Amino acid sequence: MNDLAFSEINGGVCAAKGFKASGVYCGIKAAMKAGNDGNESPISNTKNDIAMIVSDVACNTAGVYTSNKVKGAPVVVTKKNLEKSGGKSRAVIVNSGNANTCNGDGEEKAVAMCRLTAEKVGIPAEEVIVASTGVIGQVLPLAPIERAVPQLFEKLSYTGNVEAATAIMTTDTVKKEYAVKFTVDGKECHLGGMAKGSGMIHPNMATTLNFITTDCAVSVPMLQKALSEIVKITYNCLCVDGDQSTNDTCMLMSSGLAGNKEIDADSEDFETFKAALCQVMTALTRMLAKDGEGATKLVTCVCSGAPDLDTAIIIAKSVIRSPLVKCAMYGADANCGRIMCAMGYAETDCDVTKADVYYISKAGKILVCKDGLGLSFDEELAKAILSEDEIEIFTDLHMGDASATAWGCDFTYDYVKINGDYRS
Amino acid sequence: MNDLAFSEINGGVCAAKGFKASGVYCGIKAAMKAGNDGNESPISNTKNDIAMIVSDVACNTAGVYTSNKVKGAPVVVTKKNLEKSGGKSRAVIVNSGNANTCNGDGEEKAVAMCRLTAEKVGIPAEEVIVASTGVIGQVLPLAPIERAVPQLFEKLSYTGNVEAATAIMTTDTVKKEYAVKFTVDGKECHLGGMAKGSGMIHPNMATTLNFITTDCAVSVPMLQKALSEIVKITYNCLCVDGDQSTNDTCMLMSSGLAGNKEIDADSEDFETFKAALCQVMTALTRMLAKDGEGATKLVTCVCSGAPDLDTAIIIAKSVIRSPLVKCAMYGADANCGRIMCAMGYAETDCDVTKADVYYISKAGKILVCKDGLGLSFDEELAKAILSEDEIEIFTDLHMGDASATAWGCDFTYDYVKINGDYRS
Repeated sequence: MNDLAFSEINGGVCAAKGFKASGVYCGIKAAMKAGNDGNESPISNTKNDIAMIVSDVACNTAGVYTSNKVKGAPVVVTKKNLEKSGGKSRAVIVNSGNANTCNGDGEEKAVAMCRLTAEKVGIPAEEVIVASTGVIGQVLPLAPIERAVPQLFEKLSYTGNVEAATAIMTTDTVKKEYAVKFTVDGKECHLGGMAKGSGMIHPNMATTLNFITTDCAVSVPMLQKALSEIVKITYNCLCVDGDQSTNDTCMLMSSGLAGNKEIDADSEDFETFKAALCQVMTALTRMLAKDGEGATKLVTCVCSGAPDLDTAIIIAKSVIRSPLVKCAMYGADANCGRIMCAMGYAETDCDVTKADVYYISKAGKILVCKDGLGLSFDEELAKAILSEDEIEIFTDLHMGDASATAWGCDFTYDYVKINGDYRS
Repeated sequence: MNDLAFSEINGGVCAAKGFKASGVYCGIKAAMKAGNDGNESPISNTKNDIAMIVSDVACNTAGVYTSNKVKGAPVVVTKKNLEKSGGKSRAVIVNSGNANTCNGDGEEKAVAMCRLTAEKVGIPAEEVIVASTGVIGQVLPLAPIERAVPQLFEKLSYTGNVEAATAIMTTDTVKKEYAVKFTVDGKECHLGGMAKGSGMIHPNMATTLNFITTDCAVSVPMLQKALSEIVKITYNCLCVDGDQSTNDTCMLMSSGLAGNKEIDADSEDFETFKAALCQVMTALTRMLAKDGEGATKLVTCVCSGAPDLDTAIIIAKSVIRSPLVKCAMYGADANCGRIMCAMGYAETDCDVTKADVYYISKAGKILVCKDGLGLSFDEELAKAILSEDEIEIFTDLHMGDASATAWGCDFTYDYVKINGDYRS
């Protein structure tokens, strides 16, 4: 996060003009546990489990979704809605505690969530984005959501971003929000977002739940172009455990209320917009990696000197995904063989056998592998470097000018603990 | 391991006629730690770290090697030797403690290991198979090996299989040997092997170190055909952690001393030979999976009802590899969503969304997912089933007749512990 182009601002998903948000607790997990439809679940002060975002105006909207063939019902319904509305949306309804996936009546329930929201907000149902996260394969109780929607609507506020960001957390230990301001066409624009995700995070897809809003006016095709391009080098380069979720969704909504001339083609303004989007999505990616289930360290791998971007991405991701590398990072063990090994099995034809490998952190920088050969190095310095909570594995292939970054975390006892009995 | 076609016999890698083996401790790790060339390392009673196998006659030989682009020097040298000798070999020299990989002078050292062995045995150097396993990226001390080779030669015995099987262990907690007898052309034949491997085990390749010997006479091309075919459905369906080793080698040597007419084409005899090979390699695969680093449970996934074998393999492997499934098995949590999720991101076009999923063990059998939808099920029975130390995840895609099995294990605190500081 060096050389930031734009100033960070507060407000998360409400940083851009025209976006209100809210979050409440409605007892989805309690209803599932009680085995009833949720009518008896008390609405208490437990962590929020449902959120709403509403825009003052209809928004141009772009989305990237999971590539898993087992797709959550909300993903299917959101895609259909946006097709119907021609890429316009005005509201988001999203719950945690149940992924509404592999449960038979998922689509029906997701459609109901849209209908309830649309009725309350006074918009067509196809302008609602619906998302769910939590346990897969269990029936989603609708009664708590029916009770929650009016409350969410009443609580909507231009500063409701924190309430909403908290509601989408599952095993996340911290809420994830980030926003920036930037200038396009002489107008001050804002772009911010919220994300959730801690386990079941894998690079080959969008990742987790992400809602990004902006007041910068951008056409639907250019919004989609920007989102797809930036997802590739941010969320798609994130790996916590190698599992791909069924519900991953990344939505980008533009209210256009900044007043700039709509960006509808490649241009300098479009580059500025993409840079702002990249800064926000990179920041959220780092937060997701750092809060990986059980993680004690943020680990990034930079693959430089690659012949092209795709090769750099594949190699950086292969290193970040390796369970043995992740364990070595946890143990602060400067095992360079595991880095070389993971680069070697990366699915690319590129010759990685002549690479240099460095470990870098606040405590220093150390070369542990030169031209593909392990070096003798200062073990004490290496230990000090790897004992920091943010570590970079830097590799140089000496083959070209392309480079990419992948983000991940260490593998710990707590990852096993958290996932040994997730449902209870 | 039901319906075994052939009787298990003792003898491991020495079960077949004509094969002697031995193992000794020579202090490779001690020499590395002392930072000298190993002359001062005492030869003590520590676990064996070097083994030799010698055949009374030149053997037809087949091999399958790692697909990692970063290849251990011994893999490179063994391949060259067999090309030179036209697929003939008479001896194996193999050490643990150092993988002789990514260290600059690896090939030189591997060639020296072949030369030392060839001189002592009195054979051409190209008839020696060399293999190493252990830490990557550190210089292999040759002095301990120079001292060990004469000792290994002296200790060679037709019952030396246990000494050898112990010598190739690294983080393995038990030695891995298995052998069978079978009849071809009216002659009693024997086929047995030894294997090592515990971490850095991934399906997309041979896997680990494996030495299999037989006295059944088989031509080099048919040996290679049998080995490649059986590796695909055994070792290549094994996943402990998703990491692919740089040094994986599976060698199959035939002395021909059983006296049968050499198998040199597809025939009933060839089918019998393959069935024997499959039984031995399946048994070793199960042992490797069960002894996965930190594992408390053997987990197998059977994918049935698939349209073809390749699809069945890909789906079974995807489930077995999933860290979240592995954690759930550790915690005896009957989370069927994770199975569906892992099938959904398997790299195949096959529609997996209508699958049934069962958990099976000695304690019973339970259907947890029907037609792709999670069911309510008896949680107590599920817990009992998943608390056993051998668990089968059975899935039926309802699409065809093909089926495949993949083998793995659960993910535990100890995996993290073992790999947090592997080098010390």
